[in-house]
Amino acid sequence: MNKNNADLYQISSAYDGLESPGYGARPDYFRERAFSGRPASRADRQILRWLLKAAGNPPVRFLLWNGEEVGDDAVTPVARIFLADRAALLRLAINPDLNFGDCYSSGRIEIDGHLVQFLETIYRASACLPAGSLKQRLMSRSGHARSNSLVGSRDNIHSHYDIGNEFYRLWLDEQMVYTCAYFGDASMTLEQAQVAKMDHVCRKLRLKPGETVVEAGCGWGSLARHMARHYGVKVRAYNISHEQVIYARERAKAEGLDGSVEYIEDDYRNIAGDFDAFVSVGMLEHVGVDHYPELGEVIHRCLKDSGRGLIHSIGRNRAKPMNAWIEKRIFPGAYPPTLAEMMQILEPQEFSVLDVENLRLHYARTLEHWLWRFEKASDRIMAMFDMDFVRAWRLYLAGSMAAFRASDMQLFQLVFALRNNNDVPWTRDHIYLWQGQPEA
Amino acid sequence: MNKNNADLYQISSAYDGLESPGYGARPDYFRERAFSGRPASRADRQILRWLLKAAGNPPVRFLLWNGEEVGDDAVTPVARIFLADRAALLRLAINPDLNFGDCYSSGRIEIDGHLVQFLETIYRASACLPAGSLKQRLMSRSGHARSNSLVGSRDNIHSHYDIGNEFYRLWLDEQMVYTCAYFGDASMTLEQAQVAKMDHVCRKLRLKPGETVVEAGCGWGSLARHMARHYGVKVRAYNISHEQVIYARERAKAEGLDGSVEYIEDDYRNIAGDFDAFVSVGMLEHVGVDHYPELGEVIHRCLKDSGRGLIHSIGRNRAKPMNAWIEKRIFPGAYPPTLAEMMQILEPQEFSVLDVENLRLHYARTLEHWLWRFEKASDRIMAMFDMDFVRAWRLYLAGSMAAFRASDMQLFQLVFALRNNNDVPWTRDHIYLWQGQPEA
Repeated sequence: MNKNNADLYQISSAYDGLESPGYGARPDYFRERAFSGRPASRADRQILRWLLKAAGNPPVRFLLWNGEEVGDDAVTPVARIFLADRAALLRLAINPDLNFGDCYSSGRIEIDGHLVQFLETIYRASACLPAGSLKQRLMSRSGHARSNSLVGSRDNIHSHYDIGNEFYRLWLDEQMVYTCAYFGDASMTLEQAQVAKMDHVCRKLRLKPGETVVEAGCGWGSLARHMARHYGVKVRAYNISHEQVIYARERAKAEGLDGSVEYIEDDYRNIAGDFDAFVSVGMLEHVGVDHYPELGEVIHRCLKDSGRGLIHSIGRNRAKPMNAWIEKRIFPGAYPPTLAEMMQILEPQEFSVLDVENLRLHYARTLEHWLWRFEKASDRIMAMFDMDFVRAWRLYLAGSMAAFRASDMQLFQLVFALRNNNDVPWTRDHIYLWQGQPEA
Repeated sequence: MNKNNADLYQISSAYDGLESPGYGARPDYFRERAFSGRPASRADRQILRWLLKAAGNPPVRFLLWNGEEVGDDAVTPVARIFLADRAALLRLAINPDLNFGDCYSSGRIEIDGHLVQFLETIYRASACLPAGSLKQRLMSRSGHARSNSLVGSRDNIHSHYDIGNEFYRLWLDEQMVYTCAYFGDASMTLEQAQVAKMDHVCRKLRLKPGETVVEAGCGWGSLARHMARHYGVKVRAYNISHEQVIYARERAKAEGLDGSVEYIEDDYRNIAGDFDAFVSVGMLEHVGVDHYPELGEVIHRCLKDSGRGLIHSIGRNRAKPMNAWIEKRIFPGAYPPTLAEMMQILEPQEFSVLDVENLRLHYARTLEHWLWRFEKASDRIMAMFDMDFVRAWRLYLAGSMAAFRASDMQLFQLVFALRNNNDVPWTRDHIYLWQGQPEA
């Protein structure tokens, strides 16, 4: 087994012992707890067994408000799901995907055990479910994503990215990169891996000094600044998150890059100009499949004949609806596409796909770092928002980490060029045997 | 511009001066020719202009049986299309894609100019045609591929691959590899590049000594022998071409590899066993899209949980019918899929795509070598078959070379693993920073 993977696959002891309730909660948290309330009915127990069956019978048990346990006594549970009251039980039965998250956030559900390991266990069990099974029907019922029209996108993006740069600064790297990092080797720090990711992208695009780049969805602007500073290109970066654009402009100015990087607060659909390269890192998840052909037209319109493009996006092995809780509470309008769905961007314009790389495990490692920093800052985050917010984001980060390991979440980096461009790299040596900048 | 590409993109002087009629034919071949027959009618000229328009007005002219020329006098033509008689003109009008090939094969059509450059010019011009244009309607009319049922496949494969190992030996490399080579650098010989391709495939699969590999469609068995000899794996290779299997078995025995390589004359649908790796190089083109889910089931059935797979296939940027002449005369039942179509193999089984590489220009270079060797051996091939055969295969090789450069033909190498396998390469360094065999 690949050493790095082995290394990655161990949950780092780093945050393993964290004692925040609900996150790898201590057994004594439950031992000390005064259980109370009327005993569970036969119907209650049947519902809980039905829920376990619907989830593919994962090795977990329910711990009820009165201290009673429900589940397969034969197996040693990876974790116990504590239900604080009967309402939590019923909400779980009505819509598990949505209400597990809501009840966990409000503290009506606690996990006695390691949250990430628990979630991985759930994902692995449901992976074995046959298509059209109970769980899968439940999921497909709850996957209606919000619109990504010009106005819809602005609302969707605002609700996630505009909740405060101060908050993100507490647990992202110093460059404020909120996408999958590239751990060239497993010993890299998050800071190093985010820089390595930006270089990986620039090398794949074979950027040359003096070229022009358009970026669709630039976050806090780190990649645009990196390309301008280290690759000598001029960048025009689009973003509809007001808070992020303000931050990006100030930082570019402070770093003397405002002459070579222009941040535009506008929708990708309004990109105008003629560029050597198109790049989009972590925006496609917010575009929506029905807008992919439109995105393809935008890219085709703004690329020179010799132009190259790179799209970096979370993806799926097989098309299925977004988790209802994530879509509703964390990422309205978000959807991770399959490779086949991503082709709806490129095929109508007859782009040639040059390279696809899957960085799934790198995202698991990235989330591991974010979660560790998030937990360390949880008291300050609590002061900024409230306990429900902290628990919701803890679940989102832990659940994403588990999904990249044990579910079918992927991270695709896709490089493409115009159909008739024969000035494409002869091999991929330039990515791996990098010898500094090519001449202009 | 990438030096290698620049180097590649120059048609090698190597075979530029070849004087075989119809292949870069000498102008004096036409000057010396005694033109005869009645003059062309106004209707004839209108049909020819209509054909040029339907092809996107490429800079070429028609040279008629009576010495008359038709076409845009304002442009300098890349080549002239000589029509030996009126019948050729009419057949071209009825079904250009099919009848150009047939008339060229029979000598009723000659190209006054460089055949590859002429075909590239035609491809580039038609690339600019709007969807639903005349030419595209003509194409879509003629793209019905033959069945790839168990029996259908056997007939289709027999008609191409069983026409004689002696013939293929005249223009393939010493290892008899009939798929795209990998030119690690542009100076490689064909022999070196085919070995480099086999190593490229083995590295992508991270083969370890003692592992088992199943190969679907093994040609003359070169990859299976290479994997067994240099990577210490046991290979079971399937192929329905009788001639190829006989050759492969004899050669493996002569090289003392018959203990580690087993060649089975059977259809990929009958693959049985449990393997560490699945590999298929140049077979998918013959499977047919309607059989992709079936192929996916076969792969999923025969791979261990830790298994990896690699599919190497000619592809397209956008779905369209196979050229009617190639499908009818050269490759019955063949179809180059888009990446989205290839996902119909992998998505139902939820395979994770790890890596896609496009080797389009490597196939153009490979075909350049094959064509050069083919032309050198054309007299002997003529003696084996006849002039029509030589001209048909010349057109097929030259047309393929032109299509990889100027049309939308691609060469995809796709690596994948089972959904829940986390023992996948952490980066792609192992392909490019190769340090010999990994330990078992």
